Amino acid sequence: MSVTLDPDDSVIVLAHEQFPGRAKTAVGVLRYADYEVAAVLDRAHAGGTVTDHVPDVDDAPIVENMDAALDCTDPDALVIGISPIGGEFDESWRPDVRTAIEAGCDVISGLHYFLADDAEFAALADETGVDLIDVRRPPADLTVSEGRAHEVDAEVVLTVGTDCNTGKMTTTLELVAAARERGIDAGFVPTGQTGIMIAGWGIPIDRTIADFAAGAAERMVLEAAADHDVVFVEGQGSIVHPAYSGVTCSLLHGSMPDSLVLTHSAGTEAIHGYESFAVPPIETYVDLYESLAAPVAPAEMAAGALDTRAFDDDDAARDAVAAYGDALGAPATDPIRFGAEEILDDLL
Amino acid sequence: MSVTLDPDDSVIVLAHEQFPGRAKTAVGVLRYADYEVAAVLDRAHAGGTVTDHVPDVDDAPIVENMDAALDCTDPDALVIGISPIGGEFDESWRPDVRTAIEAGCDVISGLHYFLADDAEFAALADETGVDLIDVRRPPADLTVSEGRAHEVDAEVVLTVGTDCNTGKMTTTLELVAAARERGIDAGFVPTGQTGIMIAGWGIPIDRTIADFAAGAAERMVLEAAADHDVVFVEGQGSIVHPAYSGVTCSLLHGSMPDSLVLTHSAGTEAIHGYESFAVPPIETYVDLYESLAAPVAPAEMAAGALDTRAFDDDDAARDAVAAYGDALGAPATDPIRFGAEEILDDLL
Repeated sequence: MSVTLDPDDSVIVLAHEQFPGRAKTAVGVLRYADYEVAAVLDRAHAGGTVTDHVPDVDDAPIVENMDAALDCTDPDALVIGISPIGGEFDESWRPDVRTAIEAGCDVISGLHYFLADDAEFAALADETGVDLIDVRRPPADLTVSEGRAHEVDAEVVLTVGTDCNTGKMTTTLELVAAARERGIDAGFVPTGQTGIMIAGWGIPIDRTIADFAAGAAERMVLEAAADHDVVFVEGQGSIVHPAYSGVTCSLLHGSMPDSLVLTHSAGTEAIHGYESFAVPPIETYVDLYESLAAPVAPAEMAAGALDTRAFDDDDAARDAVAAYGDALGAPATDPIRFGAEEILDDLL
Repeated sequence: MSVTLDPDDSVIVLAHEQFPGRAKTAVGVLRYADYEVAAVLDRAHAGGTVTDHVPDVDDAPIVENMDAALDCTDPDALVIGISPIGGEFDESWRPDVRTAIEAGCDVISGLHYFLADDAEFAALADETGVDLIDVRRPPADLTVSEGRAHEVDAEVVLTVGTDCNTGKMTTTLELVAAARERGIDAGFVPTGQTGIMIAGWGIPIDRTIADFAAGAAERMVLEAAADHDVVFVEGQGSIVHPAYSGVTCSLLHGSMPDSLVLTHSAGTEAIHGYESFAVPPIETYVDLYESLAAPVAPAEMAAGALDTRAFDDDDAARDAVAAYGDALGAPATDPIRFGAEEILDDLL
């Protein structure tokens, strides 16, 4: 999937009956995407606006359906911003998707159900010349890595983790936002489906053929580095995860970062869902990530991001961040609580 | 792919016009497979026998075509023992495959061209109830690893490498043969296409979806360990390979071996095909493989296998093996030149 949404594009986000609480992708798009959200589709909340529910984002109307959205906006794409359990397509959304395609909008979906394989949508899209982009499907032309990502001029920063769900995507996006705030030309390389929906491009690296995973990372870094001075790569999994470590290793060696940011959730002691596997000391992660990177392309563990949601008290959170930084031997922050700019200088 | 060939099965190996020099799979099957090779198909060498060309294997006739093979044998399967560049199906083989299916033989192929997707073969196989087994296609029901391979009673040994093509499959098969020679109930877990052809079962781990690679390794180890006292797992790639390290990492964490055997080709100084990437010191590999395994399931670098083909002289090869063992801090051998039994005790 190549870049399909530019900063001057605008989209409609479908989030019927689930905005904002059960619409993580929709909220992520509102919070982090470069492109404009022109309207949100939610028949249960139509009539209100986005900031009635989510403060601190650009406002947009919430409307009943795609017809209503087209009455007041001229969007480039429809983004499916919710995902039912199992990733199925909800047939009640069909009229909205049909209307979008007929109006010349691309449709971007992270569902397991591929819109491009739906006979009606495929035929319609063919007629109107729009793209149906199923972000869970990796491109068919992936190849093995050529070992070239270290050649780029851009500074490359990869988030890594002590486990899954330690805030790699959020940390990456907060770093991108903090860098841009400072006037730095920063790019974001999305490697998972929510990141891809937010960015409007990317490859779901965990769904690629194992031999091509590093190649997918390399391709994205080369592409992003051509357009930006600093590239922040969204990490996946953990190098000590019993199931997903291979994806993490492919990302590390494929993207060849200059700097690493270790993300961790304060207080966790076992790998989530694999409770018999202990989370080793932070020092072990630093050694492992750096020593694994070194023979291929040296990378420095330059900063840490700690999720301190476990602490109600800001002082306790500050103490936890300080202790985490000591274990890392590098500056740390909680990018949500204390801001990502606290570690930005250490990554540039 | 589940186990499809038992030791008391017999097969015909197709190797038209390429036996033995350009028929690596056919020769591998003759040398290492448990099952009997009843005949080889090679129209260019028909009339001779296998040991005219390959000494030290069980003899079998070389015949013109599948009809001739069926005149003198009663095989369970036809194995495609050659692979043209690109992995295409050679149409001149069609009558042999057709005859095999009609005679009730399964057909096992490592071609990129999937026999099961060939309309004629699929229809015929349906009629006669045989299986068309395309070993390059991973099973459709793979899942993520559950982190269970360490629970098996069997001793698990994984070959790892300093690079691709360092003799991981050969070392693994020589260890299996040496163990069986000694009366040990040893199993072989094949993870690449040639190993799968030889064993008659297995999963091509580099072709699985990245998220499922460790799960594929786990599934195979659980399956093999249920039937054997010692399980030797064929390794892939190298943990410092710019393109394939993710597969290596998934195999390490998915198979959770007790012991590792590091394979290396004497004299190589750069990663093959990635010449700007130096092969790091042997000590670095020991550290990396052991420290990466430790947080998930500790594994000891227990022995080394050095390919000494670069040395004409046996004494020089002996010296190289000794130096390699010193660097490893473990016993080493060249399994082809000096035998795998030299390191067997260190792995049991």
